[in-house]
Amino acid sequence: MSPQEIEEAAARFARDDAQFIRRTPLWKLPGAALGVVCDEVWLKLEHLQTGGSFKARGMFNRLLSNEIPPAGVIVASGGNAGIATAAAARALGVKCEVFVPTVSSPAKQAKLRELGAQVVVTGSVYAEALQACLARQAESGALLTHAYDQPEVVTGAGTLAREIEAQGGGAPDAVLVSVGGGGLIAGVASWFEDRTRTIALEPELAPTLYRAREAGTPVDVEVGGIAADALGARRVGALAWDVAQRHVHDAVLLNDGAIREAQLWLWKEMKLAVEPAAALGLAALRSGAAPKGRVALILCGANLDPASLA
Amino acid sequence: MSPQEIEEAAARFARDDAQFIRRTPLWKLPGAALGVVCDEVWLKLEHLQTGGSFKARGMFNRLLSNEIPPAGVIVASGGNAGIATAAAARALGVKCEVFVPTVSSPAKQAKLRELGAQVVVTGSVYAEALQACLARQAESGALLTHAYDQPEVVTGAGTLAREIEAQGGGAPDAVLVSVGGGGLIAGVASWFEDRTRTIALEPELAPTLYRAREAGTPVDVEVGGIAADALGARRVGALAWDVAQRHVHDAVLLNDGAIREAQLWLWKEMKLAVEPAAALGLAALRSGAAPKGRVALILCGANLDPASLA
Repeated sequence: MSPQEIEEAAARFARDDAQFIRRTPLWKLPGAALGVVCDEVWLKLEHLQTGGSFKARGMFNRLLSNEIPPAGVIVASGGNAGIATAAAARALGVKCEVFVPTVSSPAKQAKLRELGAQVVVTGSVYAEALQACLARQAESGALLTHAYDQPEVVTGAGTLAREIEAQGGGAPDAVLVSVGGGGLIAGVASWFEDRTRTIALEPELAPTLYRAREAGTPVDVEVGGIAADALGARRVGALAWDVAQRHVHDAVLLNDGAIREAQLWLWKEMKLAVEPAAALGLAALRSGAAPKGRVALILCGANLDPASLA
Repeated sequence: MSPQEIEEAAARFARDDAQFIRRTPLWKLPGAALGVVCDEVWLKLEHLQTGGSFKARGMFNRLLSNEIPPAGVIVASGGNAGIATAAAARALGVKCEVFVPTVSSPAKQAKLRELGAQVVVTGSVYAEALQACLARQAESGALLTHAYDQPEVVTGAGTLAREIEAQGGGAPDAVLVSVGGGGLIAGVASWFEDRTRTIALEPELAPTLYRAREAGTPVDVEVGGIAADALGARRVGALAWDVAQRHVHDAVLLNDGAIREAQLWLWKEMKLAVEPAAALGLAALRSGAAPKGRVALILCGANLDPASLA
């Protein structure tokens, strides 16, 4: 997962006349505008991406990089990865099966169906839905997309970092990235390598990378809390772990109160409607984990119930 | 209200170290991304402006252009103009009185108080609140800000058009502007003059400029409908009428159903949370009033109850 592979993913997106992958805005503001001390904050408005999250980049790159069998594509996800896969499959006119556990919300299932996906509701937790998905994939031969632990998914996510650098007129001094399974941070760190400080942010209640760093290896963690629907992977991905050991400079934990406060502030003062997972960057800056200079925050998703902002 | 005066307003904003006026993003998308036929749509994300609407530009310019008396500033408005005036006054550390009619929502009154304004609730309709405001102003000597019909308010709004041109790398082929009292379109048309097609958009239920064009002079109209809280002026402003006769190329009416549909689409597909007044541009494009080429839409405000998007 080199910068060169990220360039190739970006070139794939650029060849798509319909521009399924949107070049989302980078908004530069003085730190004071957000009540923080760094000189500049660069808000990457990636929550405006197709499907409402950065996941579209990885999923679309996975689909564009492989021959898609007649059975189409298949994924286990009740969240943003499922939505992104279904949207990418629709854009390419291929079949899509999405396995979700019974706990996934009817609203998200409806969204997946609206995108033309075949939704299979099975298993009481994600791991069971994944098992059923893998069994089905072995039988159908469909192309499997993984929410974070596939090279094309990581390099697709890395195009976001490339775009930040192009739009910003250079690399920022630091980039703050929310981490669940680690697909996004792996892509970002693969792009910037050591040209910027890449900092991992996780909820205290979903600390996959933090615990892996403590243990010296990926370990299963209990996950819960306000951002679990997006950042609730049980264990950081193998690819992310590999990259993080070399190019992630720090890992910071944030409590749900700080995350929620940042999410509400982004709506109230900036009119940016984002999901909790996208508010960790501002929460970190406001908690005093504030690098100086030019700091990029990635607003990574907006799949939320807008009433939750009222 | 010449381009030169708009340049001067922009220079005033630039001298403000705190950057009260935000340089909001311009987002270029292929028309296909919004399901419309023009080549490019330029979304000016002005709903992310301080105070949640473009009004901050005009109010801040009015305050910066005048000596502010000890009594501070005064305005009659239960909506975006009141919020913008209160926010601008707070930024400059001057007193602010806002007159609102009894029909204005408790939420908006609370927002004004939160911004440090003295809120006077009086009169059952806006015209009565305005009367009381003017009487109070005569007595206190406070600087009056008008929601749309003052030169500094218009030139402040014009900085938005200047910014679109700078960010876009040139003027768009057309710019679509929602009209209430006409302050925004007067500023936009004063900037572009005849270098672009400036098109006025109004709700069928609040057609101030449309009726003025029919009558050949500004006339009072009945106002109501989904966007009345932002576009519900009774009569187009004198300044706007003057500019519109020379530099506004067309006026289009849109029904509330089309406006609401566009507002919901912007949330669902683009994750842009905007008020109904900001959705007229997309509604116009989708209704077939679609100029070709590069079309700029101004998302002018986001002061809405987010639950209304659910």
